[in-house]
Parts: sequence; structure tokens; C-alpha cells
Amino acid sequence: MGNTFGHLFRVTTFGESHGGGVGVVIDGCPPRLEISTEAIQFELDRRRPGQSKITTPRKEADRCEILSGMFEGKTTGTPISILVRNQDQRSQDYDEMATTYRPSHADATYDAKYGIRNYQGGGRSSARETIGRVAAGAIAKAILRQAAGVEIIAYVKRIKDLEGAIDPETVTLEQVESNIVRCPDGEAAERMIELVERFRDQGDSLGGVVECVARHVPKGLGMPVFDKLEADLAKAVMSLPATKGFEIGSGFAGTLMAGSEHNDEFYTDDRGTIRTVTNRSGGIQGGISNGETILIRVAFKPTATIRKEQKTVTREGEAVTLVAKGRHDPCVLPRAVPMVEAMVALVLCDHLLRQQGQCGDR
Amino acid sequence: MGNTFGHLFRVTTFGESHGGGVGVVIDGCPPRLEISTEAIQFELDRRRPGQSKITTPRKEADRCEILSGMFEGKTTGTPISILVRNQDQRSQDYDEMATTYRPSHADATYDAKYGIRNYQGGGRSSARETIGRVAAGAIAKAILRQAAGVEIIAYVKRIKDLEGAIDPETVTLEQVESNIVRCPDGEAAERMIELVERFRDQGDSLGGVVECVARHVPKGLGMPVFDKLEADLAKAVMSLPATKGFEIGSGFAGTLMAGSEHNDEFYTDDRGTIRTVTNRSGGIQGGISNGETILIRVAFKPTATIRKEQKTVTREGEAVTLVAKGRHDPCVLPRAVPMVEAMVALVLCDHLLRQQGQCGDR
Amino acid sequence: MGNTFGHLFRVTTFGESHGGGVGVVIDGCPPRLEISTEAIQFELDRRRPGQSKITTPRKEADRCEILSGMFEGKTTGTPISILVRNQDQRSQDYDEMATTYRPSHADATYDAKYGIRNYQGGGRSSARETIGRVAAGAIAKAILRQAAGVEIIAYVKRIKDLEGAIDPETVTLEQVESNIVRCPDGEAAERMIELVERFRDQGDSLGGVVECVARHVPKGLGMPVFDKLEADLAKAVMSLPATKGFEIGSGFAGTLMAGSEHNDEFYTDDRGTIRTVTNRSGGIQGGISNGETILIRVAFKPTATIRKEQKTVTREGEAVTLVAKGRHDPCVLPRAVPMVEAMVALVLCDHLLRQQGQCGDR
Amino acid sequence: MGNTFGHLFRVTTFGESHGGGVGVVIDGCPPRLEISTEAIQFELDRRRPGQSKITTPRKEADRCEILSGMFEGKTTGTPISILVRNQDQRSQDYDEMATTYRPSHADATYDAKYGIRNYQGGGRSSARETIGRVAAGAIAKAILRQAAGVEIIAYVKRIKDLEGAIDPETVTLEQVESNIVRCPDGEAAERMIELVERFRDQGDSLGGVVECVARHVPKGLGMPVFDKLEADLAKAVMSLPATKGFEIGSGFAGTLMAGSEHNDEFYTDDRGTIRTVTNRSGGIQGGISNGETILIRVAFKPTATIRKEQKTVTREGEAVTLVAKGRHDPCVLPRAVPMVEAMVALVLCDHLLRQQGQCGDR
Repeated sequence: MGNTFGHLFRVTTFGESHGGGVGVVIDGCPPRLEISTEAIQFELDRRRPGQSKITTPRKEADRCEILSGMFEGKTTGTPISILVRNQDQRSQDYDEMATTYRPSHADATYDAKYGIRNYQGGGRSSARETIGRVAAGAIAKAILRQAAGVEIIAYVKRIKDLEGAIDPETVTLEQVESNIVRCPDGEAAERMIELVERFRDQGDSLGGVVECVARHVPKGLGMPVFDKLEADLAKAVMSLPATKGFEIGSGFAGTLMAGSEHNDEFYTDDRGTIRTVTNRSGGIQGGISNGETILIRVAFKPTATIRKEQKTVTREGEAVTLVAKGRHDPCVLPRAVPMVEAMVALVLCDHLLRQQGQCGDR
Repeated sequence: MGNTFGHLFRVTTFGESHGGGVGVVIDGCPPRLEISTEAIQFELDRRRPGQSKITTPRKEADRCEILSGMFEGKTTGTPISILVRNQDQRSQDYDEMATTYRPSHADATYDAKYGIRNYQGGGRSSARETIGRVAAGAIAKAILRQAAGVEIIAYVKRIKDLEGAIDPETVTLEQVESNIVRCPDGEAAERMIELVERFRDQGDSLGGVVECVARHVPKGLGMPVFDKLEADLAKAVMSLPATKGFEIGSGFAGTLMAGSEHNDEFYTDDRGTIRTVTNRSGGIQGGISNGETILIRVAFKPTATIRKEQKTVTREGEAVTLVAKGRHDPCVLPRAVPMVEAMVALVLCDHLLRQQGQCGDR
Repeated sequence: MGNTFGHLFRVTTFGESHGGGVGVVIDGCPPRLEISTEAIQFELDRRRPGQSKITTPRKEADRCEILSGMFEGKTTGTPISILVRNQDQRSQDYDEMATTYRPSHADATYDAKYGIRNYQGGGRSSARETIGRVAAGAIAKAILRQAAGVEIIAYVKRIKDLEGAIDPETVTLEQVESNIVRCPDGEAAERMIELVERFRDQGDSLGGVVECVARHVPKGLGMPVFDKLEADLAKAVMSLPATKGFEIGSGFAGTLMAGSEHNDEFYTDDRGTIRTVTNRSGGIQGGISNGETILIRVAFKPTATIRKEQKTVTREGEAVTLVAKGRHDPCVLPRAVPMVEAMVALVLCDHLLRQQGQCGDR
Repeated sequence: MGNTFGHLFRVTTFGESHGGGVGVVIDGCPPRLEISTEAIQFELDRRRPGQSKITTPRKEADRCEILSGMFEGKTTGTPISILVRNQDQRSQDYDEMATTYRPSHADATYDAKYGIRNYQGGGRSSARETIGRVAAGAIAKAILRQAAGVEIIAYVKRIKDLEGAIDPETVTLEQVESNIVRCPDGEAAERMIELVERFRDQGDSLGGVVECVARHVPKGLGMPVFDKLEADLAKAVMSLPATKGFEIGSGFAGTLMAGSEHNDEFYTDDRGTIRTVTNRSGGIQGGISNGETILIRVAFKPTATIRKEQKTVTREGEAVTLVAKGRHDPCVLPRAVPMVEAMVALVLCDHLLRQQGQCGDR
């Protein structure tokens, strides 16, 4: 349990960082959709380690193989399964992990839960698990784009206290991809890169905030009550490793406003569409999309693996000190950008199909 | 779809503010648990309108009737269904709602989704829907307390910029219930009450932050990958009306720290239990509870219904102005406290049973 | 768990024969559908006890109340909840049940499972639970009829060894309702009624076979692999009380044929539709409807409650004899007819919405 | 949708007969269970084509690779994924399938549903899909055996009108595996083999009945109402290719008995266990296991692919004749035996965990 996401567009991931590989099974994909391996590989390349000087130097090609569910370049409506083999496994880096709990990792909790764990590379809690999500997200994005023109773009909004100035209504993928930190504010990006390098050289790590927009989402997606669109978005991104917080629209800052300031007044635009003047709702009202841009923010903690000495205990509870070896990201945010996009795409695609299922083509 | 929550402890709510009533069906409740109607009614009374001078003056007794699933004071293992009849319905207050979209409400989005809505009192998006959740939460709390000694306590942490000083490790239900705003910092509570009354008298509204702790949660609850405990908590509370943000542990503030500051070092306490020195993780690591106190925060926007004039449009898109009639809370936070507790209890109870199902009595 | 059925058109039943009542919550119903209380009551009346001389003399009006999900005669897309209050409860009839296990009932197994049971009237295993199914089925039928012209008709095909001659392609609801045993072959019906009365007078009971057709089901409903349409139909009807077997199309008799006899050859009819000459497939091939009439048969065992003396044991394992009191059906089949129709309707409606969700309006 | 089975022990299969391979992801497996690749391969070998002179001559080694979820020979509690690569693909055999619908296959219905299909080898409707089920079933069997001593044994009960005499209470796996037709009545087996060879040589095919027992199933598995144990068993086996009917216990024959003959009287055995004298219930009462042997029967139609000329139509509806090439089983029953066992194991394992989840270690 816990490795499947979605109701109609249903994604199941599998695999650990060490072993035969990682992958995903996507069930419920609409048929006759054109999807290329390249589109999936493009997203995996944005996620993969070793892509720049500020990510982990681990080298993994992360080439995907589509095992099923496609025929002559099109989806067949049956499960799409995608496999990425593991490579570059240095399990010797992880010998210490067999006995010692790394602080703020999942080592101790997996042990408490299962009484056993694959201690090579973090097992299932490895960020490598997100490969399956990103591959599935690439397909979800294609469906959303082809069916409704939806655009999903995430970017690094802030690293530690360095914040970029970005207009969510106009930001483009090209701007996001124009630098290695994936902050579309070029000047802020440069300072962020310097900051990451400085912390990396100190053996320390950094966190920050990823912002994500979804534009041209049709009105009417989301469900009342438990499966509100913002609730499913919150779950989706809070299931990514290292997340500590979620906001939609005005978020925590909105709690400082009066209702008379916060409400989004309605008007009718020149095409006759009912719109809101402001968008503090973040594109969702009562759990259902209102046609405005969906805007969320996700807090990522500083990477838990650092090269500074830390106090911890062994599996048996004996106090020891630990200096992480392995090769890790000093800051996960640049690689988290495609993960956040993928999770947002999975939610929206599932709700698109659910809406079509219950209400037809409204 | 969207009205059911949980996998093993599965809750389905139904009903609108106007009509035959609201309620809940709870499937999967362990058998032979002693539950009294009083325990459920206690929580419903904390949620009910008209309970104090700072909540809506609407009067509803909200008496619950247990229709099934109990026999001689104990649960039977079969569905527990609970019904609360509607009362004090002034549908004339809502005549304008048939034609006019209230800003930052669900009126327009329900219409976009379904092409029809029960415009009396907000229909399914009414806060009255949360009665079912709170009733189910009372049962979940009883299970958690009897099975594992878990305590769940929420309270108002902040209204607008007035923040209380509360120790999450020691705060008690009695302290929370000691004042009508449910902020256990008595001095802050007084200022909050004044603030709410001031805004109410101006026809305006306020938001803020509810904090919630779960103490004595056993190690090992939560699932890797999608059903991480924090992900399910995020979904749970973000499915409550008026929520705009979620944090666990260090939250957004944690993104400003270095990894070397943020990590929770391990130690072994004098009972031989492996613990963490700090708790920036908020009681969850890698999606799984670590035995420390779970700590979350939820942002609630200012109430959308205000008595100030607002610009909006009719269903047909015609520009109009609106001054809300009806009777509404100037600030939802005091009544949101039991709702947050209920949602946290539903998540923990479901994961307790799921853990028992997969891993037995570890 | 276990009280919810369906993925998109999702039905949750609740309630015991003794207590506040029984009912159902239907989530995922398409909006703007016209449904009358009468249409639901019509089906409940076909199911209700006391309707004829060959059913239990228990009198229950079984009047349904729609609590939510409807507005001005139309579905709103939100949960439809329906409640039927209990009446005519003679719990004194059931005193013996507190201590003694009735043979071939659920008394002993509920006790083994839960360690507690509501022994008044069979609790959750009471046939009264099917009220919720039949009410939900009435709505599913309306959707299927309005969306696709689907007709679902069940009837008594056989009681003990008395079999009716019925043409599944032409049988009508009027024919089914033309006699109290619900066998559209009038001559067979008369003999069946006599047989039931004879066994009833002897304090004994009878079983038989209900056949059900679904006509004008669109091509393409059903899913490959686990959720094949016949698999979901099998589960649906085998979840009804007292069922012992299920067949689709040629069924067990088909196993006696050679492949060259059994295969359904294709042809194109004069409207250009691809059809099959024969229908041994029973309207489903590879788990997916092919547009031919869906034909299933369901075996119902003789009613377990009889007025003859039987050997059994108490809860503590002590040998005793039992002569059932209570008031029971000597043969469940006439009342099972609307239950089978309801379950078939729930399956088809769910698959209709699922198909619409994944594949749109093919 | 439709490719996942189970609630707590949750199995998702993927893959077509042509393409990268077929496989399964098993989520929710209890941790620390010893499972060997050999145990899985043993079951796959029972299922694989080319295993004897009466199965298809297609040769596929069907070697399984465990990609994840195991560590040092034990399950870790995280998803177990198993891949079997495709081999021996003669897609030229299937050229005709691109244009012509094979009678009583899924060709036409997949086309109606999806508007596209992978016509090489039947795509997803290929019996090759069951590899994933059988692999998962091997693991489920191991859990059931280790946790509760459950034994699951299926065998060929009847081919056409040749029926074996087998005692369900004592039949062993060795007896089943003692001949190639998997009928533990050796004398009947010989005649069955002759019959299959005769039909094969005529280019025709045969059907029959597989019987399956589950012994030592603990009391209390199964859920009231929709997820009754027999309902889930019915769905499970009716989701296998070529099934036309399902029976539990007395089945259709039981409908010919009077209630006074059919009821299973209770007694207390010399160990103090409450048992039933007869077992017409088939080990399940009110949807819940009663500790007696579970006994089901499954009808399999004659194989649809035959080498005799048949009338059919093309995708465009043009009348043509078809003589199947390819290599196919003249009778699926010998290879269906491990498939039926696997599906029964999946159901029982899931309900074992569900029972443990809701009711603990009763």
C-alpha cells in the first residue's frame, strides 16, 4: 500500500536505488495518445543526478524503456510500464548505513515499521523512486496539453533567503531551463548558484521553495469535500521527499488579510468569461478549479545528508558520530522542479478524467 | 466521488445544509470498542454554530443519532452511520444566491462543474458538511486513545497577526477549551476575541493559523512514497473549507536553515528508546512516524462571507453588487479546531489499522 | 471495509434490521438527472417483505426518504443519501439467537470475525441490508436508460426443478410482474407458486435460479484483466445473500461443447453493425461488452431459516436443537429478482462512467 | 483502471504478449517473509506454454526477474516487482489479426472500447498476462502458508463430459502434478489426455471445469455485504480468460435441494472447535470463512482459437473466412490450474491482511 496514486489515471511506482531498477505502471491512460520516448526522457533528464555542477556528481544515464501499453507510437489504453535500470551503484559507500541511522533520514523509521530495510542507498526512500513519478508525469502533461491546453511550469522561487522575482502568469519553460538552478530570475539564479556552491564546499546543505503554476486549467476540475483539488495537490507534493510545507494562492500570508481584502471579486471579461479580478484563491474555489491560474508553493528542507560530523545512534541504540560519505545534492531544489511539475500533472490529469467520467463533456 | 476518506478506516460523508440532514458512514471500525453518544456529541458541540458570541448566531442543536453499527454500547465492526437533522433553515436568506455568485465561495465553481447546484446555504460546500467528519473523528480518537494512548490536540495559534505562545508538548484540552477562541494562551486569547469582535462589527472577517499536535503516536505509522503520513495529513486538513496552507515540523521557516542546523540528531533515552534531540521533522521522517510529537500548522483564510459591499456577477455574467445577508462566522478558527483534530485523527487511525494489516503487531 | 461498491458510481450501504434504519450513500452520480422518489419506491416495493402470500408475512412499508443530493427533482452531482427506517421489529423472536447459532446463517462466522454481533434479526447479514442496494440500483437504472437506452430485466428461471421457458431477447418487465413468483412463463409460475406453498406449509424452504438480461448495453464497457465486466457482475451478484453460483452466456453447459460449436461467428447486420450470430459469450468478450444482450444466471440456495428442528450448538459449543421462530421467506427468489437487477445496474453504470472517464464519448 | 486487484495485498499487472515483457507489482506484502525465486519460478513453470504434448507448442522459458522489494532473500515491505521478458514472438503469425476479428476473442471489443489495439498476439487479452498473477500468487501462497498453514490446491475436475473422482479433503499437489492434464484421478486423466489429443488433431478445442480447495483457512476472513469472500473469489476467477461460470459449495446443484437437506448442522469436535457436519456452504457463511474447506468450481469454455474454418468479418465489417494459424492450447484447463490457485491465494491473502487490520489478532 502507499505506492499507488490516482483514481482513474492511476500510477504505481516500484524499485529501490539498488537492485534491478525503478519504474512505474500507469493504468487508465486514454487511448490513441501520441507519446514519444523522447518526451519522457526529456523530463527524466531534468531530474537526473549529475546534470550540473550543483547537483550530486553521481552519474546515472536514467534511460527509460517503455515495456508495454504503446503500439506504433500511440497509447493503447492498457497499462504503460516504464523501467529504468540502476547503474553506478557503489554499495560500499553505504556499509555504514547497515548499522547507523542517518539523522533526518528514513533509516530509523523504516526499521521501526518493517523490522528490515534495504540499507543500500536508502532503499525505497531514495529520491531515485521519483523517476517513476516523473515519467508518469510526462505522460500526464501530454494528456493535459492535448486535451485542454494546460501548461504546468515549476521553478525555484527561493533558496534559503534568496528569492527570485517571477511573474507566474508569463514565466516559460525556456526561462526555467535557462540556468542550472531553475530560477527564471537570472540575477537571483546567479546568487543562488554561488550560495549552493558555498554550502556544498562547507559540506553543508540548503533548502528553499519551489513555486508551480498550472495555466489554462478548465473550470470544474476537483471534487467537493475530501478530494478537493487543493487537497489532492497538497498530498501529491507533500509525498515528495524533503517537503515541509504547502501553500495555495495567498497561503499563510493570506491569513494576515481581512476578508474584504482577500476575496476575489468576479467580473466578466470581453470574451464573456466569468473571471476573478485578483487570484488569492490560487485558481481553486471550494475545491474546484475556477479557470484562473493555479498557483502553489512547496517548502523543501535542506538536504539531510551532509558531510559535517553529526551525533547519532546505531540500530542497537549506541551513540556514535557520523560523517556521510556517498554523493549527494547540496540542495535538492533544482532537481525537485520536474518532480513538482509531475505531481501536479498527475493530480490534474486524474481529475480531468474523473470530471469526464461523472459529468461528461461539460 | 470525493466524499470518502481513508483505506481501512473509511469515512463517507453526505448531506447539505438544507434538506434532510447531514451525516457520515464509518466503515472498517474495529469491533468491541466502547463509544458513547456523548463522546461524539461533545465534539459536535465544539463545532456547532451559536456556541459563543464570536461565532455565527445561527442556532443548531446538531444532535446526533447513531443509526447503526453499535450494539449495547459497543461497535460491532459493521458500518456506523450517524445522522444529524437540519434545523433553523432560513432559505429566504439565500434567495439572492440562486442568481448571484458570492466572491471566494464555491457558487461559481459548482455551477461550472455540475451545471446545477443546491443554492440554499451553499449546498455541499457548506461548513455543515464537516459535522460528519467531526463525528467520525470522535470515534477515531477513541480508537487511537484506547489502542495506543494517542492524544490529539489542536488550538488557535494565530489570528491575523496576534500569535499565542503555546508549548505543543504540554498543552491540554482543558487549556484549549478554557476560552471561546480556543487559544490556550489566555492573554493572547483575550486580544484575539477583541479583534474578532471588532472585525465582526465592521462586517469584515479574519483568518489565522491552527496548530495541532498528536502525542504518543507509535513509531512506524505512514507509508513510503505516496501515502506518506505528512502527505495524508496535508490532504486531510487541506480538504477542510477555507484552508490555504499546511506545514509539518519546521515548515516554511525550516527552509531558511542549513542542513547542519535542521537535522534532528538521534540519542537513546534512559528507557532505551531511540529519540531525536530536536523535532524539526515534526514527528515524521521519510513519511513514517518516529515516535516524537507530530506537529502541524494549517492556514485558514478570512471568512469569505462579509457584510461589506462587494462587486460580483450573476450566473449570466452580469455585473452586480452584493451585501451578504445570512449569519456567518467572522472568523472560522475557533470552530475549525475540532475539525482539524478530527481530520488528524482520521488519518492516524487509518494508518494504525493499515500498519496492523501489513505488519501485524510490531 | 466491504460496504462500498463501485469506482466512479460508488455505493455505500449501512444499517441493520434492528436499530435506526438502513440506507445508502451514492457518490459520483452524474448531475442534472431527473429521478423521482416514486421510481426508487417502485423497486423497493418489489423487494419488500409481505408483498404476497409466498413471501415472509413480515410487514414493512419500507418508505424511503431522500436526505441529500437532489434539488428540485434533479441530481446535483453530490452524494445522494437515502434512509429507510426500521419498523415491525419483534426482537423477542430473536432471543434464542443471542446464544444459539442458526445453521447455514452468518451467526457463527460474524462471531468468529468480530467477537460481537447484533443478534437481533441477523444484524448486518439481514436481507434488509439489500434495501440500500435496490434504492441505488433504481438510480443506476435511470442513468443507464437515459444515457444509453439500457434495459435490465431479471426473472425467476427455475425453482427447485421447475424451470420456465423464457426468451431473454423479448421478455418484458410487465411479464415478470404479472405474477407473484416473478417467472414470466405463466404456466410454470403457477406450478412454482404451488411448490413454494407446499414447502412453506411443511416448514421447509426452496432455492432456484434467477436469470437476468441487460439489453442495448453499448459496446466497449468493461476493463481488461481484473475488472472484466463478467468478473464485476459475478462479484456483484455473488455478494447477494444466499447465492451459490454464477454463469454468463453458455455457462457450465458451454464446457460440454467443442470450440467449433461454441464460438460466436461475426457478421455485419443490415445497419452495418458488427454482430455475432450466436451469443454463447453472453454479451461480453475479453471482459468487454460487445453490444449483444448480456445474459447471466445466479443460483440461490434454499432459505436457511426453516421451521423444522435442526441440530446446532450454542456460542459456547454446547449441542442443542433449534426450531426457528421469526417470519421468513420459504423461497427468496421472487424478492431476489429486483436485487439481481440492482446489482447488474450498479456494475453497468459504474463501467459506463469509467469508460466515459478514460475514453470519452467513443 | 482494471489492472489492479486487492486492497491491502495489492497486485498490478502489466504487459502484452508482444513488446518488452509482462510482469507485476505487488504492494503491501508483509515484511521479513522468506521467498525464493524458485518458489515463484515453480508456479510459472506450471503455467508456461510448451510444458507438455497437450499444451501449445509455443516455447517460452518465462524466467522471472525480481526487480525490487526483496533484500537478502526476504521481503522488505515495499513493492515487489517481477518482470518476465517476452521471447519467441512470431508476429508474422498475427498479420491477419490486424484486419480480421477472431470469433469469441477480444479483438472486436478492444477495438470498440479503445479504437486501437496491439494486434500482435492478442495484446493485453493474451493469456500471457496471467504470468503476473501467477507470480504474485506464489507470494500470496507463501504468506498464507507461513501465517496460517493454508493450503490451496486446484485440479482439473472435468474436461468436456469426462469427470474425475477426487476427494477435496485429501487431494495433494503431488497427485495433481502426477500427470500432464492435472487431474488427480489417474484413470480419468488418461482418458482426458486422449480426448484432448483427439480434438487437437481435429483442429478443434475443449473446455471443462477446474475445482479448487483452500484448506485450513482461519475462521473470520471475508467481509459482510459487498466484499463477501465468495464474491471476491467469484470476481477473482471470473477475471481469468475463458471463464464462463463459478460455483461455491453446493453451487447450482444445491438449488435442487430443500432447505432441510441443504443446511449445514453445527457440532463441536473433540478439540472443542465448532464445526459443520456437512459443507454445502463451501467453507463460507454470510460471506465469512467458517474454518471448513473452501471449495469452488470454475467453468472454462473451449479455447476460442481453432484450426477449423470460421466465418467472421474484418474491422470494416466485410465478411471473410478465417483459419487460425498461431500455436494454441487445444484445452486451457491444465495450464489454468495454477492460475485459479493464484487468484484464490490473492483473495485469501488480501482478506487475511484486512482482517488483521480491522480486528487485530483474533
